[in-house]
Amino acid sequence: MEAVNPIEAHAVDMSEVVEKSHKAFIQYRKKSSEERAVFLEKIALEIEAEGDSLIEIAARETNLPATRLVGERGRTTMQLRIFASMVREGSWVEASIDTALPDRAPLPKPDVRKMLIPIGPVIVFGSSNFPFAYSTAGGDTASALAGGCSVIVKAHPAHPETSERVYKAIMRAASATNMPEDTFQHVHTDNNGSKALVQHPHTAAVGFTGSYTGGKALYDYAQQRKKPIPVFSEMGSINPVVILPNTLEKNTDLLANSFAGSITLGTGQFCTNPGLLIAIESKSLETFIRTLSMGMTQVKPGKMLHEGIYKSYIERRNKAIRQEGVDSIVRIEGKEDFMIGNAMLASVKGDIFLRNPYLQEEVFGPYSLIVRCKNAEELKNVWRSVAGQLTTTIMGTEEDFASHRELLEIAADIAGRIVFNGVPTGVEVCPSMMHGGPFPASTDSRFTAVGIHAVKRWVRPVCYQSCPEILLPDELKNSNPLLISRFLNNQWSTEPVV
Amino acid sequence: MEAVNPIEAHAVDMSEVVEKSHKAFIQYRKKSSEERAVFLEKIALEIEAEGDSLIEIAARETNLPATRLVGERGRTTMQLRIFASMVREGSWVEASIDTALPDRAPLPKPDVRKMLIPIGPVIVFGSSNFPFAYSTAGGDTASALAGGCSVIVKAHPAHPETSERVYKAIMRAASATNMPEDTFQHVHTDNNGSKALVQHPHTAAVGFTGSYTGGKALYDYAQQRKKPIPVFSEMGSINPVVILPNTLEKNTDLLANSFAGSITLGTGQFCTNPGLLIAIESKSLETFIRTLSMGMTQVKPGKMLHEGIYKSYIERRNKAIRQEGVDSIVRIEGKEDFMIGNAMLASVKGDIFLRNPYLQEEVFGPYSLIVRCKNAEELKNVWRSVAGQLTTTIMGTEEDFASHRELLEIAADIAGRIVFNGVPTGVEVCPSMMHGGPFPASTDSRFTAVGIHAVKRWVRPVCYQSCPEILLPDELKNSNPLLISRFLNNQWSTEPVV
Repeated sequence: MEAVNPIEAHAVDMSEVVEKSHKAFIQYRKKSSEERAVFLEKIALEIEAEGDSLIEIAARETNLPATRLVGERGRTTMQLRIFASMVREGSWVEASIDTALPDRAPLPKPDVRKMLIPIGPVIVFGSSNFPFAYSTAGGDTASALAGGCSVIVKAHPAHPETSERVYKAIMRAASATNMPEDTFQHVHTDNNGSKALVQHPHTAAVGFTGSYTGGKALYDYAQQRKKPIPVFSEMGSINPVVILPNTLEKNTDLLANSFAGSITLGTGQFCTNPGLLIAIESKSLETFIRTLSMGMTQVKPGKMLHEGIYKSYIERRNKAIRQEGVDSIVRIEGKEDFMIGNAMLASVKGDIFLRNPYLQEEVFGPYSLIVRCKNAEELKNVWRSVAGQLTTTIMGTEEDFASHRELLEIAADIAGRIVFNGVPTGVEVCPSMMHGGPFPASTDSRFTAVGIHAVKRWVRPVCYQSCPEILLPDELKNSNPLLISRFLNNQWSTEPVV
Repeated sequence: MEAVNPIEAHAVDMSEVVEKSHKAFIQYRKKSSEERAVFLEKIALEIEAEGDSLIEIAARETNLPATRLVGERGRTTMQLRIFASMVREGSWVEASIDTALPDRAPLPKPDVRKMLIPIGPVIVFGSSNFPFAYSTAGGDTASALAGGCSVIVKAHPAHPETSERVYKAIMRAASATNMPEDTFQHVHTDNNGSKALVQHPHTAAVGFTGSYTGGKALYDYAQQRKKPIPVFSEMGSINPVVILPNTLEKNTDLLANSFAGSITLGTGQFCTNPGLLIAIESKSLETFIRTLSMGMTQVKPGKMLHEGIYKSYIERRNKAIRQEGVDSIVRIEGKEDFMIGNAMLASVKGDIFLRNPYLQEEVFGPYSLIVRCKNAEELKNVWRSVAGQLTTTIMGTEEDFASHRELLEIAADIAGRIVFNGVPTGVEVCPSMMHGGPFPASTDSRFTAVGIHAVKRWVRPVCYQSCPEILLPDELKNSNPLLISRFLNNQWSTEPVV
């Protein structure tokens, strides 16, 4: 195990870091797709080569169980390989070609071609709850490197050694695949250093996963820049779940047990944790609550990520249950030390929820608030009142859906992902995934942080008009040497231009 | 000719306008693709039905010649029809489907589907220099309506009657095609009203075409919002043109005559006007400058759009030529009244240009500055020093390009569109077009304001996980009833899901 010497960082150091990143970018973007793909794959291999000791360090630093960390590392290397495949396949650049019509009247039509190019150095602020998959070599880093951007990761202070080890794995991969120096950099710094990174003129974009406070602060730093840049802060969510009457009656126990697991999964430390359950008052709801409570008490308590998160959880949880009209249902206090997770279930009536915006605040951890609505109208109003979310879930039978078609509109208004008859925890890594949602879930609801489309955050289109064939990038050449899919005269095609 | 009564607008009125727009949006987004397409086509027809009187009003309000206005109206209706075709065809929603793998280990893969949905009410601030194509029913309005957003246009004070007439044409189209009330609204307001529009909680996005001052002000208003929204300000550009030595020597007169036309086209009032010509000192450059000067004096003077633009032009032009080391080459003063265009050509040495950032400021009008560089190195430095641009142009022979391959990198760094051996004025409306560029050319270089991809500014993806077939939008249904292209299990396909 290596010693970690967090760098004492100041604004001036950060300036040097970004300058170096910019120099690296100028070289790195010239690397071929194949070279970038090999680099990403090599990172995955080097992370795997870290073996059990990496898992041990991460487990010690985060309190997450080894099995979970092994799974998360697998997702991380899988993401790197998915982006490698995407880069190697090549069509992600959205090449578009409109050929010339020299005889068009009244004016000839020029040859116009377009493709996506990388925007520049990207600063990545990793999360505490995903020490691998949304940290040093996580989705933001993988997608930015795939897109051709250089990357500076600000190590998360909750797991500096894990971050340092992954950084060294990336460095070995960069060296083995001859990547330009400083294509990837890793810094330990404080709030001032973070601000300097975001505000440096050469910084082209920012990716963040974490709390609203942290993500909004970075967004605000960026707004103070002379030249605006995109900031993608994914800031968590309470992920409202609507349980419709028919399914509540028919599947009471099944639902209760499923949510007992989802609320407490990873000690509730997922940004997709279901923090709000909305249902109409009924006998079934009371049964559901009893079974859910029992289920939650049976879940083995787990340590939270670190003391700060634990304290914030207790504080926010206690503040939530002190609100007028909020009843505590389950309260499972930890036994060993302050790091033990504390599951909590509370409930409130719909009209009270509607009057108190505090009840929408995220309590990061194993907490969920049940909103008891007096009828379908109130349920809809409660749901509609909720601010932007990463996900929202609808539990219902065919009968429920038939009588509540308009629910889908509410769902799409408030969230980036709508889950049907499932739990929001667990984010599938695939092209159709959307991880991101209306503010305050994220700062830009038009982009996903998960899946190959995450690369679109780090690129911009550039158009070549009447460009001589010899100067065109391979992606836009007549012969289509990379055999990619291109939007050629209004049709997707892999054919050459004739 | 109808009288126009500009509404005396206050913040409170604007609030009502946006509330109405939001109500309309809830209804309008439910309209089918076919209904939206018919609406857009009907707008085009109704604008055409305004006939010559619309051209006469516009000519009087803008001083633009009728032939130019007829051409611009043609582009405007063509844009509306292109967006109608796009909506009717349907694949623009980027439907993506990943089907379930229930037997996948260790966890089953859920069915995940994604498509683009409209974001909400869009505020459009039209331009003064394009009273049709970038104004009331221009590209921003057409793309936003195509995407399913309601639109509020803030009429440009330089051509309020033209705007009002086009507004009425849109209203007739909306009524004839049964669009929800207030799907499109039109307001005359001042700076306070504009601020209120941008800052209203229900406003989802802003489109602007005009000056840096105006576009940046709207961007800053949006930054003061609690909930961030995208702002697309297209703020003009000096569109640097690099003329390489071999072509300068071989095609001296051809180049000079071509740029004499481009610099003075529309009295220089295009955002793609070539305001900066960069070349290496040589005998050919002197001949080029002489011929260009002569060409410019032969162009018939034209009236500028309005007094404000005229005054600003004179002020900025005079300030530019008062800078140290700037030599005036041609100065064509108007003869009739203050509204007459004044063509101007000036030159400066490369090292002086590099030391004085003021020389990069846009002089909106028929003005161009020639930068005389002492060698290729200085030419590259001058070009690289220029801030973000809509376009940049490279004039060169095969021989030039062979010895200056690295020029393409500079071009892609500073601009959204690179023109080869042509003039930047004239923006082709096609999918491969990119109209937008690094700041300060526009506030978001990732999106184009011209061509069908302009719709991407007004939409966001939403993901449906395990959604029952009956609840899925048509775009995502197994049967693919709209026969659109979808990204189905990692392949573009028009096939149904089996």
